[in-house]
Amino acid sequence: MHRHRSSLGDLLHHVHVSGPLSRAALAERMGVNRSTILAWTAELVAAGLVREEHPAGTTGAGRPSLVVCPESERVSVLAFDVAVDRLVAARVGLGGRILERRAAPRPRAGVDLDTVVRKLAVLGRDLIDPDSLCVGVGASYCGMIRPGDGMVRYGPEMGWVDQAFGTELSKALGMGLPVAVGNEAHLGALAEYQRGAGVGTADLIYLHGDVGVGGGILVGGKLLGGESGYGCEVGHMLVNPVDGRPCLCGSRGCLEAETGEYALLSAAGRIPDPASRTAEPRRAEPGHQTRPFGRDAVRAVVRDAAAGDRAAAAAVAEIGDWLGIGVANLINLFNPGVVIFGGMLRDVYAAASPQVAARIAQHAMPVSRERAQLRLSALADDATLIGAADLGFTTLLADPLQAATNALATAR
Amino acid sequence: MHRHRSSLGDLLHHVHVSGPLSRAALAERMGVNRSTILAWTAELVAAGLVREEHPAGTTGAGRPSLVVCPESERVSVLAFDVAVDRLVAARVGLGGRILERRAAPRPRAGVDLDTVVRKLAVLGRDLIDPDSLCVGVGASYCGMIRPGDGMVRYGPEMGWVDQAFGTELSKALGMGLPVAVGNEAHLGALAEYQRGAGVGTADLIYLHGDVGVGGGILVGGKLLGGESGYGCEVGHMLVNPVDGRPCLCGSRGCLEAETGEYALLSAAGRIPDPASRTAEPRRAEPGHQTRPFGRDAVRAVVRDAAAGDRAAAAAVAEIGDWLGIGVANLINLFNPGVVIFGGMLRDVYAAASPQVAARIAQHAMPVSRERAQLRLSALADDATLIGAADLGFTTLLADPLQAATNALATAR
Repeated sequence: MHRHRSSLGDLLHHVHVSGPLSRAALAERMGVNRSTILAWTAELVAAGLVREEHPAGTTGAGRPSLVVCPESERVSVLAFDVAVDRLVAARVGLGGRILERRAAPRPRAGVDLDTVVRKLAVLGRDLIDPDSLCVGVGASYCGMIRPGDGMVRYGPEMGWVDQAFGTELSKALGMGLPVAVGNEAHLGALAEYQRGAGVGTADLIYLHGDVGVGGGILVGGKLLGGESGYGCEVGHMLVNPVDGRPCLCGSRGCLEAETGEYALLSAAGRIPDPASRTAEPRRAEPGHQTRPFGRDAVRAVVRDAAAGDRAAAAAVAEIGDWLGIGVANLINLFNPGVVIFGGMLRDVYAAASPQVAARIAQHAMPVSRERAQLRLSALADDATLIGAADLGFTTLLADPLQAATNALATAR
Repeated sequence: MHRHRSSLGDLLHHVHVSGPLSRAALAERMGVNRSTILAWTAELVAAGLVREEHPAGTTGAGRPSLVVCPESERVSVLAFDVAVDRLVAARVGLGGRILERRAAPRPRAGVDLDTVVRKLAVLGRDLIDPDSLCVGVGASYCGMIRPGDGMVRYGPEMGWVDQAFGTELSKALGMGLPVAVGNEAHLGALAEYQRGAGVGTADLIYLHGDVGVGGGILVGGKLLGGESGYGCEVGHMLVNPVDGRPCLCGSRGCLEAETGEYALLSAAGRIPDPASRTAEPRRAEPGHQTRPFGRDAVRAVVRDAAAGDRAAAAAVAEIGDWLGIGVANLINLFNPGVVIFGGMLRDVYAAASPQVAARIAQHAMPVSRERAQLRLSALADDATLIGAADLGFTTLLADPLQAATNALATAR
């Protein structure tokens, strides 16, 4: 019985990650014969989780091979993304399709748990669709998350220490479902591995930047958890011990202090230097974004650098240099197959790849770097949200029939 | 059949790692009943791999429970350790007992493959004992090793690039056995995990210092290999990008350049500063070791620091500071349960633990460091040699009866 449960889960997982697949393709991937796939698919169809369709472009002639499709519209999760400058909620269908989303800006600092949870719950409840079975809830948070209960152990941007985020969000939603919470970079790494720039590469590093810089590191296809689940804290790797910018963690010279949003914006003169290393921030030139923070502000610097703004270009090069040092260190330590740049680091890497490449050539061992590809996040601004959705689908994929039954009972 | 092979291997592995164990203890560890242990033990006894004994201290009265012991004297491997200042060979018995050893000094640089292999073969052949079945050969090397064939991809201390060390040593020994080669820090990590300071802690970091600094990092009990087996290169993590000491890799400011033997000895004025940052090295005070390099020279600095030599104390503190930065970075990245200091770093950490602790407090996230223990290597100067021996025992433990039969045939 247990084995059957996990076979159904495996089949559903293939369809969830890869989209419509023929019975023949499923039989090959799972190493069973087609009649077994036929029987398993029938059970999943009966539970309303998949349907069989003629593949697009076939005509009625001959004997077309049916494809198994996820019931994306009928089966979904709620996914939340708590990022530095916005709160996002989405209904994401089986198969990883974002069906509908809501977003709200959020103030940068000093936001208490209660306020954030209340806003998220409003966004989330607005997305509930009576025609779609909600099978789970997942959330991405920009901080260190205790495995199991979604407790935020440390979230420097909001000043959170030991806040019961998962539990409180579950209560506020009032749907009778637990909220599975993960660190944003961990979730982004898993999402890129499943369906993004890291498919097929089991030793993968995903770097996610906003104000903070987080890492999701897969070792042999598994997220590096460590002794208690807090591994991958790349953002606080000390890269500049002599002349480092101050970091929200209280230290100086951490990778995130040298490569995050504030570093780029202050190096470009768009915000005052937090270390006051320049007496006065340069005045913003005409045409610059009026909103000084966030990914739009980062993209404005990158755009201006490309257009010949010298301060912007120097800032991009400086941040790229530090990013390259961080990546070189990670290549030495992890001998990865791919390093993926996400969040605002996606924009930074796109503009500063020469600096990054130069530092890697200088500081990473030739043997360690010879197989390492550097890539932009394929899921871009949705990587963490898709990762949160996948977290929400975990229960369904572990035991599809039971989870569907439970979700139906909870919804009533 | 395959399952039986691995059951016998598991039983032998328990006895190899833990020493004499009662049938009851084995039954509990392996989750089978005692009569099964009895049957399996009988097969291993017949193959000459274990024996059953009355435990030490029992008298003839009552019904003493027999213990299963490894046949350490009768079953052994040859283990080699190519370290920065010496070549070591040992015969190591099943159970990890070093039965006999030979060592020779080696010049520091420019030693070609042929010379090293010839010297090792002489040391090794001298240890062959006709009364002991040699079941394998393992070697520890201070460089980056290609998995599978023991090719040294990069060994900066000897200037080796792509040298077929394993293959050539096997030829030179002429015993008809392959030589399994591993990086010294990888092997030290596995040895400390099996029978040293890391028993029971599956997320473990072992740092090994001599001239180079290597790392062996276990993630969930497995060595971090990465995409092609070259993970764990902690020594070339850039920690001092501004004012770094030159490194043998050609870069500057790498962890090994700031914490290895040359850094300590030059900071203490015992050897000229390789960066010539001081115009002239301080003259050695009377009573200092005459031999300027190696672990004895390192221990002399540590001893002199404790005895009040100010230059030595300052050097220990400075190197401890950089070591602490490196360890803090590793704690952030790996959330380890234990960090173990081996090689000359064992001596450095013993003397500089306050500096290391201060840097960890400053740069490692509280959540990441809360479970991390810092320990001295329990196997001390034998960690890498014991690790090499364990590599030599791999084939035997995978299929004990077949491997014993093969070894017997090879020996004839």
